Amino acid sequence: MEGHIYRTFDLELKELKESLLYEAALVEKAIENAIRALLERNSELATKVIEDDDIINAKEVETDEFCLKLLALRQPAARDLRFITTAIKINYDLERIGDFAVNICERVQELNQEPQLKPYIDLPTMAKIAQLMVKESLDAFVKEDVELALKVTRDDENVDNLLDQIFRELLTYMMQDLRTISRATRLLFISKYLERMADHAVNIAELVIFMVQGKIIRHLKEVP
Amino acid sequence: MEGHIYRTFDLELKELKESLLYEAALVEKAIENAIRALLERNSELATKVIEDDDIINAKEVETDEFCLKLLALRQPAARDLRFITTAIKINYDLERIGDFAVNICERVQELNQEPQLKPYIDLPTMAKIAQLMVKESLDAFVKEDVELALKVTRDDENVDNLLDQIFRELLTYMMQDLRTISRATRLLFISKYLERMADHAVNIAELVIFMVQGKIIRHLKEVP
Repeated sequence: MEGHIYRTFDLELKELKESLLYEAALVEKAIENAIRALLERNSELATKVIEDDDIINAKEVETDEFCLKLLALRQPAARDLRFITTAIKINYDLERIGDFAVNICERVQELNQEPQLKPYIDLPTMAKIAQLMVKESLDAFVKEDVELALKVTRDDENVDNLLDQIFRELLTYMMQDLRTISRATRLLFISKYLERMADHAVNIAELVIFMVQGKIIRHLKEVP
Repeated sequence: MEGHIYRTFDLELKELKESLLYEAALVEKAIENAIRALLERNSELATKVIEDDDIINAKEVETDEFCLKLLALRQPAARDLRFITTAIKINYDLERIGDFAVNICERVQELNQEPQLKPYIDLPTMAKIAQLMVKESLDAFVKEDVELALKVTRDDENVDNLLDQIFRELLTYMMQDLRTISRATRLLFISKYLERMADHAVNIAELVIFMVQGKIIRHLKEVP
């Protein structure tokens, strides 16, 4: 009987992992589509990402309820307890990342009212890195893989460097032609949203490291 | 004996509330000092806020561990369980708000390298609202006061309106004088950080409403 309960609990933990992976896949897709909407000047796609955020939100609520159910019914100890409370926080982070994809799409819709400012090169690169960081931070969680989590925290430097580069380039545009200011500012916001997404992925990665190693690296360095 | 355990648990929940209120007070002070550093062009104060963020971070870790301890040792049911998992998320939000105070101070240090662009009027107003929202969201939590939490969600509109106003004003500065662009952009970032702080306060308020009413209002409206 005891064995049966443990097997059930193991299945439930597996279900929790799958639930978070599925939510992460939705979020990754939202990032990808948000940037595609930017590149292709596709306002319909932007609207779709904004509307589909409801699905991510519903998934977040569902996962959160599931975690609560596990805590209440299984009363897990030590290791499993930390796993579930980590899942609660990761779930919270994932939903925020989805919100930033929505924010990007809102700026895309505004940008599409005017001609394109410049060919976008760094923004899609930045988005690809952010998307990969989200994916890898979740993989690190389900596999409890500290090395992969550490890779995610290191990748954040690339995002920060790209942000600096985009920031400088957009400043140059603004200074050369006043008419670019409102578009450049919107692009600047988009790059900030991507940076924030990457920050959330780093948060997730640091939660994983803390969960596995019981060490606090979360506050050893502050994200700029 | 049972009664003794319940009394102990009640004391522990009280301790948890006090711990979060203390952390919130630190965060409110950080917001206040960050804006004072901006207004008074005080780089030393900015540095102090950045350094003191370690104290907030340490408090976050401590509160998080305390929540885990309560979950493991007391195995609370239903209502208390939701209270503690809500505390875990609020704690996570509070620490992020502290990070934005640090971000403001970093921009302040950069701004202090150049002459002041303009008298700041809307930014301190925005900061005061954000600070109050943080305070009231936490008060709503410890008192389980849905009305107060709803007030916090409504106050967010004022922050959004101020952001729009600041955004338009800074755009005008940039367009009139190219030499203002880098300073105006930094001020724009500061206003975005304040907006994000307010968003986190709204998150906390919505967690409180959800906790008390068991209703999900979190995703009824999306913060822009």
